Amino acid sequence: MATYRLYDEKADFTKKAQGIAVGLTVGSWTELPEANKKSMEPHLGRVVNLVVHEPEPGSPITERYADIQIAYPDVNFSRDLPALLVTTFGKLSMDGKIKLMDLHFSEEFASGFPGPKFGLKGVREQLGVWDRPLLMSIFKSVIGHDLDGLREQFYRQALGGVDLIKDDEILFENPLTPIEKRVRVCMEAARQAQEKTGQKLLYAVNLTGPTFGLLDQARKAIEAGANALLFNVLAYGVDVLAELSRHPDISVPIAAHPALAGALYPSPYHGISAPLLLGKLLRMAGADLVLFPSPYGSVVMPREENLAIQHALVTEAFEQDYLTSSSETNSKTSAWSLKQSAPVPSAGIHPGLVPLILKDFGSEVVVNAGGGIHGHPMGTEAGGAAFRQAIKATQEGVSLREYALTHPELQTAIDTWGIKE
Amino acid sequence: MATYRLYDEKADFTKKAQGIAVGLTVGSWTELPEANKKSMEPHLGRVVNLVVHEPEPGSPITERYADIQIAYPDVNFSRDLPALLVTTFGKLSMDGKIKLMDLHFSEEFASGFPGPKFGLKGVREQLGVWDRPLLMSIFKSVIGHDLDGLREQFYRQALGGVDLIKDDEILFENPLTPIEKRVRVCMEAARQAQEKTGQKLLYAVNLTGPTFGLLDQARKAIEAGANALLFNVLAYGVDVLAELSRHPDISVPIAAHPALAGALYPSPYHGISAPLLLGKLLRMAGADLVLFPSPYGSVVMPREENLAIQHALVTEAFEQDYLTSSSETNSKTSAWSLKQSAPVPSAGIHPGLVPLILKDFGSEVVVNAGGGIHGHPMGTEAGGAAFRQAIKATQEGVSLREYALTHPELQTAIDTWGIKE
Repeated sequence: MATYRLYDEKADFTKKAQGIAVGLTVGSWTELPEANKKSMEPHLGRVVNLVVHEPEPGSPITERYADIQIAYPDVNFSRDLPALLVTTFGKLSMDGKIKLMDLHFSEEFASGFPGPKFGLKGVREQLGVWDRPLLMSIFKSVIGHDLDGLREQFYRQALGGVDLIKDDEILFENPLTPIEKRVRVCMEAARQAQEKTGQKLLYAVNLTGPTFGLLDQARKAIEAGANALLFNVLAYGVDVLAELSRHPDISVPIAAHPALAGALYPSPYHGISAPLLLGKLLRMAGADLVLFPSPYGSVVMPREENLAIQHALVTEAFEQDYLTSSSETNSKTSAWSLKQSAPVPSAGIHPGLVPLILKDFGSEVVVNAGGGIHGHPMGTEAGGAAFRQAIKATQEGVSLREYALTHPELQTAIDTWGIKE
Repeated sequence: MATYRLYDEKADFTKKAQGIAVGLTVGSWTELPEANKKSMEPHLGRVVNLVVHEPEPGSPITERYADIQIAYPDVNFSRDLPALLVTTFGKLSMDGKIKLMDLHFSEEFASGFPGPKFGLKGVREQLGVWDRPLLMSIFKSVIGHDLDGLREQFYRQALGGVDLIKDDEILFENPLTPIEKRVRVCMEAARQAQEKTGQKLLYAVNLTGPTFGLLDQARKAIEAGANALLFNVLAYGVDVLAELSRHPDISVPIAAHPALAGALYPSPYHGISAPLLLGKLLRMAGADLVLFPSPYGSVVMPREENLAIQHALVTEAFEQDYLTSSSETNSKTSAWSLKQSAPVPSAGIHPGLVPLILKDFGSEVVVNAGGGIHGHPMGTEAGGAAFRQAIKATQEGVSLREYALTHPELQTAIDTWGIKE
């Protein structure tokens, strides 16, 4: 069941909706001979809901639009995401001002998607961290650096007490830091740091290259010691993530990066809504962690949209949020369930934002910073420490200002970036 | 070299452009120690061009925007389309109102892309048709039909004298008409029709299913006799097309379908321009034929954009249109060249539009119709014949009305849909 928002000044939305339901399934209906209708009926799409919003004097609605729900029989398509997307938003995506807002699935279709192999809890298990939000850091700069340079950056981040370190998404296979060597050198730095911090960490190495070579590339990385992968899912296709995630050889968590997502979600008139694209679809495709633009940085996404992404990544209310509500699914508890994907709101994060992040997202979140760690005046290690202090203070209900009195790294971070509440 | 259009009421576009060029390559520049600048310099992005368009009284510009060209050193990324897209429009796609308008490539990067294996000329060669535009038809309805039903539709289309028949893009692997059986039955119908018409035809069967199984699925189809493939490239990713196209086992032409493209190209503020997405990128990825929305149907795309797609698919002026203009490439003829992809403007096509299509697109075009063939009052076969008559008339410089006097199929088509000039 697909939910669309259509903008049109004059359209007969009822006719339009009927046209979609028939046109994208059996092709034609009213002209069909009665004898054929019976055999075609199980394939016929149906308009489930239609709400027209008319601009009226004094109303906040300035443009005429309709929210339309169409149910597509799942017998019409195979159990893969390209089939789902082509059916519900293939030709239709090019038909005027129309945005795909949401999708609900039959339990039968959904059961083809095992979702994250590890999920948030699996990641916590690997790290042995259960009692606080996780902390991720991003390399400051990677292009043009050699192995020693990356190693040094990695080690300093690790010393600061971060739980995960991710490659920059623009670091591809290159002669200076090829994936196997990069993994070996960084994982060795992780072990050295662990001797000092006593803390495990995951290194999400960027999985890149031609699509049909990704599995081999991932195997190489994992054999070299990689304990996580970063993946630019939208540059490849959501199904490629699903294929990787469900493959038995991919024995480590996958962090999905939202690169290119801005080509799809921001317009109100076109594309796919952010909560569907970065939330529901990526969780179904098996992302263990999902990075998405935070509401705090320069990259603007409305806060409600952020929280809707997070909700789609962690909700356990599958009937309501993921499945079509038929009488069958209403009367029993769904057998389908998915592990939670870890939400990673990213961009513009500094320690002074931690109380707000935890208020907005709760403790089941990954705090992710780049400049907010590397830009710390006392150095990268202090940058990580300041975040850990901010997290601890917030969890203990102590204000950052108070906690900073005895924690110079946090104090310096606050002096540098301030506190936002 | 990427060309962007950025909308912003107040931004300092010069600073913004510099920020992109540095931020998406070496990360930081002015703060770099002088010693490091030398080793980083080959990786540094550069602002090549910046034109700010200010709204002024009396000017047609109502919003402030800038056209910005940034050059990214190709040493920064690997020779694949995901790396290209993540570098040029990964994080940046989420940074406000910004659209990726065009890309130019270094010859070194471009040389990794052999382009279409057959191209328009290869398709003509297989069909033995050199002297006229090609004619493609689409099944009327496919979902819920069994093999006999498809066979009958196929045969009637073939008898009308079409050169290519394509599956509906929403026909997936299904128990009624699985790909191998569908291919066998339809290719047999093609042979029977050929006995009557003396004409060969290509059947583009829809290649679907999970990404890592596509090669096997294609091999099965080809072994069963398929002589072309249809592929929903944007539901999978442009690189998957590139992988299929360059694979030696894919020994038949691939027709790329634009399903989902409307999620990416229509907004002026976000996404990827249609000529880049459906033109340049799909040709580089190896599409032998490319379907795109015609300017004649209900699906609206401005005519200039249509012609820009067509230009990108067929141009032989690579230096100007595809390659970055460095002093090197200017001083010699490029060694890189690509076969032409056959342009297939689609939707809303009827015989009365043929003179206009040939005027707009020339004769190196595939005329593609669904309803304009099946909806012919004298039947599907007459529908195909009416198109062939319209093409012949136009090529001979005879008006459709005059030609129709001795060709009842064309006359009936004109009576039904009219003529648009």
